[in-house]
Amino acid sequence: MGATLADIAAHAGVSEATVSRVLNDKPGVAQHKRQAVLTALDLLGYERPARLRRRTGRPVGLLLPELMNPVFPAFAQALGPNFARRGFTPLIGSQSEGGLDEDEYIDMFVEAGAAGIVFFSGRHSDSRFPMDRYTQLLELGLPLAFVNGYRADIDAPFFSIDEHSAMELAVRHLTAMGHRRIGLAVGQESFVAAQRKSEGFHSAMKKHAGDEARAVIEPSLYTDDGGISAGRALIAAGCTAVVCANDLIAVGVMAEARRQGLEIPQDLSVVGFDDSVIARNAWPPLTTVRQPVTAMGVAIADAFVGEMNGVRASRTEYLFQPELVVRESTGPAYGTRRHNG
Amino acid sequence: MGATLADIAAHAGVSEATVSRVLNDKPGVAQHKRQAVLTALDLLGYERPARLRRRTGRPVGLLLPELMNPVFPAFAQALGPNFARRGFTPLIGSQSEGGLDEDEYIDMFVEAGAAGIVFFSGRHSDSRFPMDRYTQLLELGLPLAFVNGYRADIDAPFFSIDEHSAMELAVRHLTAMGHRRIGLAVGQESFVAAQRKSEGFHSAMKKHAGDEARAVIEPSLYTDDGGISAGRALIAAGCTAVVCANDLIAVGVMAEARRQGLEIPQDLSVVGFDDSVIARNAWPPLTTVRQPVTAMGVAIADAFVGEMNGVRASRTEYLFQPELVVRESTGPAYGTRRHNG
Repeated sequence: MGATLADIAAHAGVSEATVSRVLNDKPGVAQHKRQAVLTALDLLGYERPARLRRRTGRPVGLLLPELMNPVFPAFAQALGPNFARRGFTPLIGSQSEGGLDEDEYIDMFVEAGAAGIVFFSGRHSDSRFPMDRYTQLLELGLPLAFVNGYRADIDAPFFSIDEHSAMELAVRHLTAMGHRRIGLAVGQESFVAAQRKSEGFHSAMKKHAGDEARAVIEPSLYTDDGGISAGRALIAAGCTAVVCANDLIAVGVMAEARRQGLEIPQDLSVVGFDDSVIARNAWPPLTTVRQPVTAMGVAIADAFVGEMNGVRASRTEYLFQPELVVRESTGPAYGTRRHNG
Repeated sequence: MGATLADIAAHAGVSEATVSRVLNDKPGVAQHKRQAVLTALDLLGYERPARLRRRTGRPVGLLLPELMNPVFPAFAQALGPNFARRGFTPLIGSQSEGGLDEDEYIDMFVEAGAAGIVFFSGRHSDSRFPMDRYTQLLELGLPLAFVNGYRADIDAPFFSIDEHSAMELAVRHLTAMGHRRIGLAVGQESFVAAQRKSEGFHSAMKKHAGDEARAVIEPSLYTDDGGISAGRALIAAGCTAVVCANDLIAVGVMAEARRQGLEIPQDLSVVGFDDSVIARNAWPPLTTVRQPVTAMGVAIADAFVGEMNGVRASRTEYLFQPELVVRESTGPAYGTRRHNG
């Protein structure tokens, strides 16, 4: 490859001898020169000799529903190093209003040679959507994994926070402090997570508040604006405490409460969900149900790396146990504000 | 391609006639079947007929330094749709402790066929690092763009928030309310942004506070923990107001102030930077210098899509003007707390 060698050498700014050493995988070439030669090969469109391929790990796609709720970047951040350590390169795609949708990212990941795709609260978690697309990919042999949003009809590993336990923790905490009329500010009802939270919330209220219980569920959006409107409705319904489906909703509920002149937690207790970076930085610092994001990152990477290497992961849904982090947004119910039962 | 056709048809779950129609780009095939055939081709390792290639846009790499400061996901979210609309698929890589570093992501993006890479506050923004790697990529013809962190020695388009204007806005706001001893809680000093903020802060203090001015600069980390330690030092130095290099630092400063029993803004005024999702959800809601992330997203995509298509963007640094968003974390100085000059 006479002319080619000179060409590569010129582009990489090294001697032809160096190019030759690199192509034959000989030692004695400085790392930055080696890198320059390989990059020149790639950019000039030459195929690398087999022994020099796969310089980085195979890509694995992480598909996030959005980036504004900090829990999704946190999941990506938790999974990234665990995949990298096992020889894979995590590539993140995020859906966004007016941007690419899930299907387009799937195509992109497949074209980039992804060894598998992990979906976070994706379209799979919305019960209105058909699952054909996923089934198709699985039948074609592309490993998939799903985080938060279980669908019995997909043959893939699922990893979820235990929403029933989460509601049990939140409701027990609030009822122990005397709250009886408690609201749940949840996201769109079509999502599996919302359905599970609602069920868990109802059964925990029944268990801990008994006949006195008044459980009020207000579906809204998974944003702080959603929290403002849900908060308005739940305060009007006389709730003395509100459990929220994520921390963004919770800060929205707190903002609406303050706008109405209510003190937190004296007039209204608020519980968040996720323990994202927002929770400890909110004021008052937010009592919240923590998703063990770091532990989930390790477990998901472990199971999914196996799956990508042909070791089938268990098809049981992996359920992770949440914990309640009590900060300052929750306190005793005085029971005298507005409606009284 | 007899056997192959049957093979693809079997995998895609469609008839051979359908595979044939798709391969010849004939109409009359349902979108989901077309997709199934193309995906089967990719996954079975067949090369697509030329006319069916480039189903998704060419990838463009977005390299973020981290995901925990919400301004970086916000930049990715702002750029994504603008690239998608212009026929590119944004792929996000994020560095993380123990994960992949910038070099490894560069390799990954190059291997995935990226048309270009946008670096956000990357290694380029740290003046300690040599720029050879970037120069090399540019010489090889790979378009690069850099956001926040200007280096005169790289021949690529740069997009930055105007740090001098930012400091001018913050200092003018605080001095107008009587503050004279003001602290700057900034990140690591080796970063271009930190250097520019320090310069801008000094000159704004000189201009607006004159001889009375006491400007105290405390370098720390770009996290809320960094804000806690910087806050401690700046409160001990008698500052009645603190300007912070990002919103995470600002909530850290507020947390430390409260821990010491100080009220915000009565005892200490705090100004953030970015106007990320944290700012409006902090308590008190944070007065902050807003980076016009959405406008920057449009401008960066515009200029960089041109660059990737061979239309050279201007080599002037694009400077975006910040705006001050006044919320409740800043107020008049009473000037009596601790040191008095």
